[in-house]
Amino acid sequence: MSERRLPGIDVTPLSGVGTVVWYRPDADLPEPPAPEDVDAEAELEAFELAVAEAEAELEAERERTADRVGEEEAAVFDAHVQFLNDPQIASGVEERVEDGRPATHAVRETFDEFVEQFSGMEGKMAERADDLRDVRDRLLRLLTDGERVDLASLPEGSVVLAERLTPSDTAQLDPERVAGFATVTGGRTSHAAIFARSLAIPAVVGVGEDLESVADGETVVVDGRSGDVVVNPDEATVEAARGGAADDVVEEAVTTADGTDVEVAANVGTPQELAPAAERGADGVGLFRTEFLFIERDDAPDEDEQYEAYRDAIETFPDGRVVVRTLDVGGDKPVPYLDLPEEENPFLGERGIRRSLGPDADLFETQLRALLRADADTDAGSLAVMLPLVTTVEEVEAARGVLEGVVDDLAAEGVNATMPEFGVMIETPAAALMADVLVEHVDFFSIGTNDLAQYVMAAERGNDAVSELGDFRQPAVLRAIDATTTAAAGTDVWVGMCGEMAGDPRLTELLVGLGLRELSMSALTVPDVKARVSETTLEDAEALAEHALAAADRDEIIELLEQS
Amino acid sequence: MSERRLPGIDVTPLSGVGTVVWYRPDADLPEPPAPEDVDAEAELEAFELAVAEAEAELEAERERTADRVGEEEAAVFDAHVQFLNDPQIASGVEERVEDGRPATHAVRETFDEFVEQFSGMEGKMAERADDLRDVRDRLLRLLTDGERVDLASLPEGSVVLAERLTPSDTAQLDPERVAGFATVTGGRTSHAAIFARSLAIPAVVGVGEDLESVADGETVVVDGRSGDVVVNPDEATVEAARGGAADDVVEEAVTTADGTDVEVAANVGTPQELAPAAERGADGVGLFRTEFLFIERDDAPDEDEQYEAYRDAIETFPDGRVVVRTLDVGGDKPVPYLDLPEEENPFLGERGIRRSLGPDADLFETQLRALLRADADTDAGSLAVMLPLVTTVEEVEAARGVLEGVVDDLAAEGVNATMPEFGVMIETPAAALMADVLVEHVDFFSIGTNDLAQYVMAAERGNDAVSELGDFRQPAVLRAIDATTTAAAGTDVWVGMCGEMAGDPRLTELLVGLGLRELSMSALTVPDVKARVSETTLEDAEALAEHALAAADRDEIIELLEQS
Repeated sequence: MSERRLPGIDVTPLSGVGTVVWYRPDADLPEPPAPEDVDAEAELEAFELAVAEAEAELEAERERTADRVGEEEAAVFDAHVQFLNDPQIASGVEERVEDGRPATHAVRETFDEFVEQFSGMEGKMAERADDLRDVRDRLLRLLTDGERVDLASLPEGSVVLAERLTPSDTAQLDPERVAGFATVTGGRTSHAAIFARSLAIPAVVGVGEDLESVADGETVVVDGRSGDVVVNPDEATVEAARGGAADDVVEEAVTTADGTDVEVAANVGTPQELAPAAERGADGVGLFRTEFLFIERDDAPDEDEQYEAYRDAIETFPDGRVVVRTLDVGGDKPVPYLDLPEEENPFLGERGIRRSLGPDADLFETQLRALLRADADTDAGSLAVMLPLVTTVEEVEAARGVLEGVVDDLAAEGVNATMPEFGVMIETPAAALMADVLVEHVDFFSIGTNDLAQYVMAAERGNDAVSELGDFRQPAVLRAIDATTTAAAGTDVWVGMCGEMAGDPRLTELLVGLGLRELSMSALTVPDVKARVSETTLEDAEALAEHALAAADRDEIIELLEQS
Repeated sequence: MSERRLPGIDVTPLSGVGTVVWYRPDADLPEPPAPEDVDAEAELEAFELAVAEAEAELEAERERTADRVGEEEAAVFDAHVQFLNDPQIASGVEERVEDGRPATHAVRETFDEFVEQFSGMEGKMAERADDLRDVRDRLLRLLTDGERVDLASLPEGSVVLAERLTPSDTAQLDPERVAGFATVTGGRTSHAAIFARSLAIPAVVGVGEDLESVADGETVVVDGRSGDVVVNPDEATVEAARGGAADDVVEEAVTTADGTDVEVAANVGTPQELAPAAERGADGVGLFRTEFLFIERDDAPDEDEQYEAYRDAIETFPDGRVVVRTLDVGGDKPVPYLDLPEEENPFLGERGIRRSLGPDADLFETQLRALLRADADTDAGSLAVMLPLVTTVEEVEAARGVLEGVVDDLAAEGVNATMPEFGVMIETPAAALMADVLVEHVDFFSIGTNDLAQYVMAAERGNDAVSELGDFRQPAVLRAIDATTTAAAGTDVWVGMCGEMAGDPRLTELLVGLGLRELSMSALTVPDVKARVSETTLEDAEALAEHALAAADRDEIIELLEQS
């Protein structure tokens, strides 16, 4: 039998080969017994036991996710615990059991009633429906003990196939044992995809109903580069999948073929990601997110706790630079000890630098103190401080004032603190439009393409209906980038990029041509991008960029990229 | 006693004088009787009667609001009816009554429980808390019949003071009888403010706790220009308030003092607004929103129904132009017969032209047919067709193709249809950045400053925490406008503006200087803007714009505007 390819959406540039295990958490329940045959008391006990077990599991998974992926991703489990303990849900189940339904059916019916309510709502509330399904499936698994696949103890070399994988499901997957996964539904920004990238699990999502044609026990390759699931793979395909990407790591800094330095750095969201970033050849950290220190806890981390974390980061890259983004939270991220406002559009609300110069001024100063002390106490490596969501010159000047004040304070305390490199993210259209003014106030720009593209195009890349509009290869997005690099040209200000766009090797030549001299990305793609930089000449890159900027539409740009 | 001024937020440029009537819907309930003294059956009957009365009231208010304000604003009442009929709420009230609480207290406690749940949520769900309070207060008013102020039958010349006014409250206000209102809370974009502008009621919001110092029966002026509530006003203040703005209406088209034509048009959201727009001297309609035809109904309006509405609009301005924006709906506006997706960020989703070229293609074609037929059948006046939320050239070309196809189809049917003026809204950063390309494909641009400023600055003007950032007087916003007018300079393409910015007379000179030759706004401010245009010279205006574009920050721009 020859190999068969099922195309899906590529999620990680990694491949894996293994044996299919189908995961079907919502398989049909057996026919329930007649009401008079149901022992209500026993069923209620079973339900209560399942709730207790589920809560223990959730707590464990929350901690595991916080450790392995990040505090932010772990937050979803808190919502689950809330639903688990919701009195309305509990009484719904109890009433049904008392009416003669077994606990399994009572759970399914009660949750489905709430799922339906939430499904009819909009936005955030519709997500709640997913959370409810997740809690429902967990309880059903516990209630039908042993009849379902346990994701946490799969045989080594398993490839998990599923309709979809919830955050709870992916949190249970052990990257050491699982060779990959593929799902019927899902897109590049689905929970499952984000987890796969964070944990470096080969994955393909959105394969569609064709995936159902693959049976338990078959051998498949999950090809995260092509986005294919390969059933009954040829030897050559298996060989290629086993090859992996780890061999291509380039430890040293790279230049273009004609000698222009381009720094290739990693985006890091938790301390656990520092070592893998270094191992995959990152020259430094182009975006060190500091939210992990602040979220999912009852009070703010003190200066010393932050100091340790920042010092570890700087010491991991003794020859490089760590660009630390100051705290970037807002109304859509829960931080219980901050008085975060409830906003209709948190996306357009008080977040990032707006909070650091407003209600979170104390926190900002403490963070800067910890950063400058960590920088002062490390012999090698260097610190850069970067402000999120800048839109005005006033913000940059105000933040610089705070930073200079902290340098002076520390000097007065005898700490050998110096001004670090100081820069801003260009992630709003305003920042790109004002780059020629901002350039006089900073040492560097780092373009955050995810937000920038969304604001410029008024389109969310994660929304399938408009994902083409939200694509980075839109001429308007390239023009916003060009406005930034053009403003910095001829000055000492360097321009980097730390959005997802920087990690796509197909765009490396274009970005170098547009004037970017630092690219920061998921550690996974560092080797690929380094390879692309080395193959490129500045002359070709600049010619490509010039043509792309003159393009009237996305199709023209895609064609140019394919020809280059 | 001399007059006393309480500063608040100006909401309408209208003033009114009258006698204070405090509206306190949530005044304390009397102490409840002991549980054994409560006649549960009678209380339940009272509750059911109140629910039935409330539903009848809501239906009537829904219709009144739909007629007087617009279908979109009326939609809020549907949510209220839903809560009124919610079985969980009903059973909560019933349980409490059966436990010996009177219906009033049972209603208050049940609703407050739900209010608390929703208040803890984010965004849209937090708004639900307001809706619940509104339904609660309505039921309490009906249950305590006669003890509360009835907004629908206030004495003529009343000025209503309140902590806040809900959509239900404002819908009851009769503009003929109410001289104005003022509230303790609220901002420029609160429901109450929007209603006040739509119904042309003098109003000041956000006065703060000082408002409580004003007593029932006192005489006050609500000065919608200064944003003050004036207690015990001097004769001169009363005189000025009575003067009103209606006298200043300029019927004819205006030019700058040195002879440049500037069209001053009105934004119109319902057919009811057409006549007032003409009466206040609008030269035409710069933004005719067509959503009123499509929302709050069970199926789409047919071609003939649309034809009548468009024909009425064109005929209202026989010497002018009516710029019709094609249907602009998306995931955050309920249109039951359209399959609108639930989106996490409808603001960045499938809306406007994206739907008209996608799932709503049939609707788009029907709308264009109705528009072109209406244009063909009117001797005077002219039609312009405008596309919402454009971000790419492909969209403009695709829409033009549809429009040309409709012209051909109608011609084949014997209708004397011709290509109307064809243009796009510039309301995304992408459209402004691509204006030099788009200009080759259109007859006009109309800048939608509300959305444009929000996307450029990543800040919502309605959000107090970031309202300064979302201000139109940000240099980045002016640069986006300038990119648009610069792209059109030297071409035949005219550039107008139909966002809120166009209606602020303090900005008229700057806008003329930036190159805008059409300004479209709420009919209320047409006379003021016409006056400002006539006083301005193009030379001064262009000098002001040049300085403003060179400004580094908003403060500089504000200073320039104050000096000009």
